Amino acid sequence: MACLEHIFAPSLPQSCCCSLPHGVETSFTRLLRCILSASSSLDVCVFAFSNMDLCKAVLKLQCRGVPIRVLCDKDYAAIHGSQIGVLRRAGICARCDLGSVYMHHKFAVVDNRLLITGSLNWTMTAVQSNKENVIVTEDPDLVGPFLKEFQRLWLHSDPAQYFHLSDPKPADKPTIPSTDKP
Amino acid sequence: MACLEHIFAPSLPQSCCCSLPHGVETSFTRLLRCILSASSSLDVCVFAFSNMDLCKAVLKLQCRGVPIRVLCDKDYAAIHGSQIGVLRRAGICARCDLGSVYMHHKFAVVDNRLLITGSLNWTMTAVQSNKENVIVTEDPDLVGPFLKEFQRLWLHSDPAQYFHLSDPKPADKPTIPSTDKP
Repeated sequence: MACLEHIFAPSLPQSCCCSLPHGVETSFTRLLRCILSASSSLDVCVFAFSNMDLCKAVLKLQCRGVPIRVLCDKDYAAIHGSQIGVLRRAGICARCDLGSVYMHHKFAVVDNRLLITGSLNWTMTAVQSNKENVIVTEDPDLVGPFLKEFQRLWLHSDPAQYFHLSDPKPADKPTIPSTDKP
Repeated sequence: MACLEHIFAPSLPQSCCCSLPHGVETSFTRLLRCILSASSSLDVCVFAFSNMDLCKAVLKLQCRGVPIRVLCDKDYAAIHGSQIGVLRRAGICARCDLGSVYMHHKFAVVDNRLLITGSLNWTMTAVQSNKENVIVTEDPDLVGPFLKEFQRLWLHSDPAQYFHLSDPKPADKPTIPSTDKP
C-alpha cells in the first residue's frame, strides 16, 4: 500500500503526514490516473463498488463537472461499505441493475474512448489483496461492445420503467384526456 | 440455452434427441470453439471451475493430446460441482493457488497466442444466467502479460514447494552425503 495524495492532490506535494510511502507509482495509481483522465464522461458498470479511493476519484470528476453514470448490481449496492449512497448524495446518477441475475461486469469507459475492464471488482479486498487483472485499451473493436452493453443496461435500469407495489395500477390511474387528434 | 452437440460431435449431425434447439450459435458456443481450437497448449487460470460443458471441452482437448494446465483458487476447488477432481482423474495437471488471498482471475490462453478473459467465472450460473463479458484477442500486448502472470502463479503453486505438517521437518530428514567436492 502507498499514499495516494500525489494522485488526488498533485499540487500539494508532501502535505500528507501519513506513515505510508509517498509518491509511489503502482498498478492502482495507474488505474486511478486512467479514471481521473476523464474530461467528457465516465460510465462505470461494476458488480460491487465499495472501494473508497475509487469513489474519491469519481467524486473528484464530479467536482470537475464531468458527466458520470454508475451502474451496479442491486444486491451489492446495499452491502456494508457500498459507496453507492455516497455517490448519490454527491448528486451522481447511480442506478442498480434490477434483473433477477447478477450483473457481474467490472468495467468503466472514460470519454467514450478508453475501456477499463477485467476481473477487479471495485472493492477494498480486490484492490488491496486479491490476484486480479485489469485491461486498459482504446481499441475501438473492444471499446465499442462495452459501450453498447452499458447503454443497454443503463436504459434497462431506468427507475422510471418500474413502479412500486403501492403505486396505483395503470387501470386506477386518472385518465388525462388527450389533446392529440386521431 | 441450446444443445451443444454440434460443437462436441460435429461429425454426428442430429444424433441428439434432446428437446433443446440444435445447431444454434451463441456467445457460449463461440467461447467453446475458441477453447477447442487449441492444438499445442491450453492454460486455464480461473477463480472457480464448475461448468460441465467447459470441462467437457478441456477433456476433449486432453483426448487429442493437447498439453493442458489448469489453475484455480484453493477455496473454490472443493465447492460442490467443482470440476477440478474430474480433470485430475482424467490425468490433467490441475493446481490450486495456495495464497492467503483470492486468485480471482478468469482467463485462459490457447496455444500461447489467443487470450480469453473477462468477468466470466467458469461456472454454470455465470454461463447460463449472469450478465458477463468475455474478451477474445490475439493482441500480443494483451496476451503477453497474461502469459507471464500464468507462468508466475503456476510456478508458485507447485505442490513440490509445499510440505504437509506430518512431513518430516528438514532437520529430521535423512542426510544424503554429497559426492560434490567442495
